[in-house]
Amino acid sequence: MQGAAESNVLALAEASKLASAELALSSTQLRQRALLAIAEALELNAEKIAAANEIDLANCKKRVENGELKDSLFQRLKFDRAKILSTTQGIRQIAAMPEPLGVSTLARQLDEDLELYKISSSIGVVAVIFEARPEAMPQILALCLKTANAVLLKGGSEAERTNRLLFEIMQSAASAAGVPQAAFALLETRADVKQLLNADAFVDLIIPRGSNELVRSIQENTRIPVLGHAAGICHVYVDKTADLKMAEEVILDSKCQYPSACNAVETVLIHKDVLERILPALCAALQKRAVELRVDECCLQSLEKITNAEHDFDFDLLKAANENDWKEEYGELILSLKAVSSMQEAIEHINKFGSGHTEAMIAQDRTRFERFFRAVNSAGIYLNASTRFADGYRYGFGAELGISTSKMHPRGPVGIEGLLSYKYKILGKGHLVADYSGTNAKVFLHKDLS
Amino acid sequence: MQGAAESNVLALAEASKLASAELALSSTQLRQRALLAIAEALELNAEKIAAANEIDLANCKKRVENGELKDSLFQRLKFDRAKILSTTQGIRQIAAMPEPLGVSTLARQLDEDLELYKISSSIGVVAVIFEARPEAMPQILALCLKTANAVLLKGGSEAERTNRLLFEIMQSAASAAGVPQAAFALLETRADVKQLLNADAFVDLIIPRGSNELVRSIQENTRIPVLGHAAGICHVYVDKTADLKMAEEVILDSKCQYPSACNAVETVLIHKDVLERILPALCAALQKRAVELRVDECCLQSLEKITNAEHDFDFDLLKAANENDWKEEYGELILSLKAVSSMQEAIEHINKFGSGHTEAMIAQDRTRFERFFRAVNSAGIYLNASTRFADGYRYGFGAELGISTSKMHPRGPVGIEGLLSYKYKILGKGHLVADYSGTNAKVFLHKDLS
Repeated sequence: MQGAAESNVLALAEASKLASAELALSSTQLRQRALLAIAEALELNAEKIAAANEIDLANCKKRVENGELKDSLFQRLKFDRAKILSTTQGIRQIAAMPEPLGVSTLARQLDEDLELYKISSSIGVVAVIFEARPEAMPQILALCLKTANAVLLKGGSEAERTNRLLFEIMQSAASAAGVPQAAFALLETRADVKQLLNADAFVDLIIPRGSNELVRSIQENTRIPVLGHAAGICHVYVDKTADLKMAEEVILDSKCQYPSACNAVETVLIHKDVLERILPALCAALQKRAVELRVDECCLQSLEKITNAEHDFDFDLLKAANENDWKEEYGELILSLKAVSSMQEAIEHINKFGSGHTEAMIAQDRTRFERFFRAVNSAGIYLNASTRFADGYRYGFGAELGISTSKMHPRGPVGIEGLLSYKYKILGKGHLVADYSGTNAKVFLHKDLS
Repeated sequence: MQGAAESNVLALAEASKLASAELALSSTQLRQRALLAIAEALELNAEKIAAANEIDLANCKKRVENGELKDSLFQRLKFDRAKILSTTQGIRQIAAMPEPLGVSTLARQLDEDLELYKISSSIGVVAVIFEARPEAMPQILALCLKTANAVLLKGGSEAERTNRLLFEIMQSAASAAGVPQAAFALLETRADVKQLLNADAFVDLIIPRGSNELVRSIQENTRIPVLGHAAGICHVYVDKTADLKMAEEVILDSKCQYPSACNAVETVLIHKDVLERILPALCAALQKRAVELRVDECCLQSLEKITNAEHDFDFDLLKAANENDWKEEYGELILSLKAVSSMQEAIEHINKFGSGHTEAMIAQDRTRFERFFRAVNSAGIYLNASTRFADGYRYGFGAELGISTSKMHPRGPVGIEGLLSYKYKILGKGHLVADYSGTNAKVFLHKDLS
């Protein structure tokens, strides 16, 4: 096993870099075989893995009882036979996907016998810091192997025994299939992570999954590019052309289906023209699902009027929203509501306060949506669908390493394609730039090859 | 004119962000019209521009005479009628290129009436810090306008008058064509740049062109992503299957055609099998072009043997290379030479000491090149062509903002495509994630639409 003994992370990272060049040469068949061997080894060792996981679970249980850890963490930590089998099914799906490397996305004749190609390639060495969900490691390792990236893995300490065993099983299965052993390395301590941040000579990308604080602290302490994913202040904008019943259902799904996810909605913007018609029923439905509502002045006034008439919502449970509410990722059953007098105001609010993650517009007018789509600069912009669809699995990416809110690639859910880079290839016959310069310069053809 | 008076760069950047959303809504026709209006305005004002440039030139001349500035800077600063016309020709070419925005690169049916698209979009607000070449500003502005990015511009102070006039002419021509005025802003001082580095709420990307020190100092002082381009330690590897005459010509072109360019070669790696046959003639040819040679022990020994026979190179001019030579971007007529005993050794040397910019292999064996291509992780990897081809214009990108040595997009020469991001669009009919979860979960179709 490639361990991080004596915190020799730089040496591990250097070995990873060498292994990544070897991995870049590996055939599709070799990587496919290795993925299937990994799936098989995990299935063969399912009992052993579940047993190691039981120990992690027992340790975690004590800490939950002491109040050190949240109960939700305990739930996510569980890795039984059923979860192992669904994980290996995912690995087999990744193995069956088409080869992502060596795909030409540009082919151009620059001149006679001088051709330019843009070819998909691996990134090199990727480091992933992930939470205490045991299925995370097999998924990450499978995505990296598929894309021929070497990977340094650091999992949540609560899953330590499970992770170590998973790593041993997967590395030895991959090695037996011909993958260089140093292509995967396991980091186990915070000190390891600290060293990792200085390994910019060897590591090409760090992907920290977890809290916004974790992502930020890593970004501020390394020169390695960081894929900072997951900060999510998502919006649903209810347009004046919305089907209001649909709006209500999409908002409930976007908020309640999994409130702690980064793609859950935090703020709903409602066009004034439909405010009075949607608000009472929407508030009643959200309160019924135990959602705390923070509403702006305009919504409050609209609801006040209604309190004289018959209504199903509890006015006294409403809280007044202030500007901080537009900036907050609640991550729980809290939702802010704001009235806007135009789609333009909704766009400006989203571009100002949003995190560039995912926004949904509820509208029957497709032309208005196309304007909204072009003006809002977020990774995902949906018409009449829940923000919770922002997910690599739902997009059909096979699996997901996280969601990037970067403007640059990778953006949105990061799957196989997000782990690819590209290289330009030129094939010449001794071509010189001098011949294309000066007074008698040859002229480039620049003819795209089909 | 949108100036940076009172160093109010944050306010300028905020206005740019608002303008970028407006620009994202602009039609192809509007941006095309604005590009042509800019070209026309520059041509109409050519005499005025040349006159402003004369003043910059006169100021610069004094500083060259005082020894404050290099003569080469003076040469680059010149912006006469001929240069203006070749610049506007470039802008017309950019205007004529196909619309880069709104192009769908993924279309997938997730389920009945639920469709996913990946659509090219602008990045948002880009800041470019560039050297004292007056044609830089029109090129940068044209590329940003084509891609609907707002842009903050800071040019070399030596071209101050020329730049200010160019900016006024271009901004007013674009405004008259309907481009929001705040889409372009001019920064003029170092203090402005310092403020810019804190504008991470508004600026999406900084592109510093210039010295490695400039790029590094910006990277270390901002949370905004930096496209750090141009550090170039490029290699030519002469394989044992090389046509040696071709190797000599490509090396001469790669080194001498423009030695200060980032795509010029710094180190030549030669397979031992052909060392004795290529070295004497290669050294003689390079010395004839006034190239200082720094050679490793093995090359030295090989050349020593030959000094007994007839030869055209001057043995006494050779210097011994040490490891620092493998890490240095000479940027002038200096070249290091190293013998390698295998292609694998060449690959390892390049991956260890190279900067990921551009490498050329001289070989007749295409299969060996394909291995080299896969194992070397640089932005450009060429067979039998000069490293100097690494250039946006030569690639047919219309113009170039710089060359990125990043592993992530944009990589290599950065033209229109490098200034694009993408957004995911989902079109639904009220689709909820809850329906795709749990025991009776609906199954995704994930069917690619052609």
